[in-house]
Amino acid sequence: MRMSINLNSNNNGFAERLTAKISELANPTVLGLDPMLEYVPANIRDYLSDRCSDQLLVAGMAITEFNRRLIDAVYDIIPAVKPQLAYYEQYGRPGMDAFYETCRYARTKGMLVIADGKRNDIGTTAAAYARAYLGETQLETESRAIAEVDALTINPYLGSDGIEPFLEQCSLHSKGVFILVRTSNPSAGDLQDLKLADGRLVYESVADMVHKWGSGRAGASGFGPVGAVVGATYPHQAAGLRDRLSEAIILVPGYGAQGATAADCAHNFTADGRGAIVNASRSLMLAYKKRELPPEAFDVACREEAIAMRQALQAAITNR
Amino acid sequence: MRMSINLNSNNNGFAERLTAKISELANPTVLGLDPMLEYVPANIRDYLSDRCSDQLLVAGMAITEFNRRLIDAVYDIIPAVKPQLAYYEQYGRPGMDAFYETCRYARTKGMLVIADGKRNDIGTTAAAYARAYLGETQLETESRAIAEVDALTINPYLGSDGIEPFLEQCSLHSKGVFILVRTSNPSAGDLQDLKLADGRLVYESVADMVHKWGSGRAGASGFGPVGAVVGATYPHQAAGLRDRLSEAIILVPGYGAQGATAADCAHNFTADGRGAIVNASRSLMLAYKKRELPPEAFDVACREEAIAMRQALQAAITNR
Repeated sequence: MRMSINLNSNNNGFAERLTAKISELANPTVLGLDPMLEYVPANIRDYLSDRCSDQLLVAGMAITEFNRRLIDAVYDIIPAVKPQLAYYEQYGRPGMDAFYETCRYARTKGMLVIADGKRNDIGTTAAAYARAYLGETQLETESRAIAEVDALTINPYLGSDGIEPFLEQCSLHSKGVFILVRTSNPSAGDLQDLKLADGRLVYESVADMVHKWGSGRAGASGFGPVGAVVGATYPHQAAGLRDRLSEAIILVPGYGAQGATAADCAHNFTADGRGAIVNASRSLMLAYKKRELPPEAFDVACREEAIAMRQALQAAITNR
Repeated sequence: MRMSINLNSNNNGFAERLTAKISELANPTVLGLDPMLEYVPANIRDYLSDRCSDQLLVAGMAITEFNRRLIDAVYDIIPAVKPQLAYYEQYGRPGMDAFYETCRYARTKGMLVIADGKRNDIGTTAAAYARAYLGETQLETESRAIAEVDALTINPYLGSDGIEPFLEQCSLHSKGVFILVRTSNPSAGDLQDLKLADGRLVYESVADMVHKWGSGRAGASGFGPVGAVVGATYPHQAAGLRDRLSEAIILVPGYGAQGATAADCAHNFTADGRGAIVNASRSLMLAYKKRELPPEAFDVACREEAIAMRQALQAAITNR
């Protein structure tokens, strides 16, 4: 009897790990960690302010603790977190400390980490971003991984040579990318919905590029390391993109605070209910408001809301 | 006699400060600071490695010292620096320390600072990036500016509500933005050159949006806070964009290491030789190679090359 080993199946790739984790928890949700200092309950902020006079350090430590408690509350029911880098960069060095520590901590709890940075640049600079988030940086005598993340969101405006350095690191280190196709914001259409001379819309042409960049890279799950961002706030567009992006896991922002429902998100899943992950940030981080709990119960409220969201998504996918 | 004060003239705005500084030094050059540890001469790296065992800290300190010496070498002949964030993010926290310190030091020497981050996201997140680089972050009882920069490069893919939060901070704090229109990389055309149904190319439609976003914001110089990035490697496209972007200062990448000449860059200037600033990164940082000087003379070589570049640009603008 011969053993058959398919070296191209990429079984430990990002898409395999993410789809396995979604399947294990029966929950295609990603917790967006977009913290503002004002979100952190006063008891945590006061504890830190009493012990440290530098308000920027207090902010960094406060959001680290806020994130840690959110992760503790949901790591057994949500497969991944998505820290949005802007919210950490606004707190400078202590903010970046909070970002790195949040990524590290989420992984110790078995969660996957999607860094939401929407980075891109020309080839040599894209390579530096790819090292910063997906690969390793060469130091004097050692190479070091800088951030403990599994995937990064990237922007397609610069074309293929702004994408390839990220794909190279995906191959080397089993990481993934999610490329912006159709975003969830009100003015997304300003550029993305312009009609091309060949009849496609700009976002459809980007979807075709994303499909091409990912082509031939899919693992046993049927999905590969090149994912796409498709907002849930435009379900009509999403329905057309699922087929166009057959090997891409779709990262779906817009649920909750931005107004999209579970039914709106359902269009991004394949017929067998796979291939997408729905982000919720404020609706989970600040669930205590909706659930009429005190701010100190933000973690308990987040878990309750996460369970409700999981049920809503499961029902919407089943009832299409 | 009545004093006439035009409150809308924005005389201390970013565009006024940059055009005045370019005029004062008769040099439309920006020094791109895109450091790699390997660019730093061995004598600096060895000095730091002998005193610190953490190689990541050594990298951060080494590039800070490298940048400081470059700034010391040219601050009286070059009006601005452009640190590219990817190169700092690849060195993690010590890298971000180097970024903040480089910005601060350049300003103490009277240079303007353009942070090259090509950031963008949906409105609420774009607001966080705008606070991080152009505005201030609200802490427990104080507001604090996080980075000492004058302008930031941003990406247009998300449309107007990914742009407005940056424009708001520009107005509040006299800052500027440079929005990607036509980039300098080989695959720039993948998306940017697609033909629209109305006959324009995608990058032309972005130029029209950039013009609209900047409209009515120009100061006494004729230019406003909303600038554009137009690569010098495609001089044919640049010639058409200068008229389309009448109130925008154009940031021109691609000179030197990427292959564009001074004559290629000249298309981005107005008929009277104003309204653009040309970036050079590797050709200035690593000028010692071309000038056959030892690596330790990188700062002297940078100054010599900067003077040659200034002369080449002046001649190319005059001789069009």
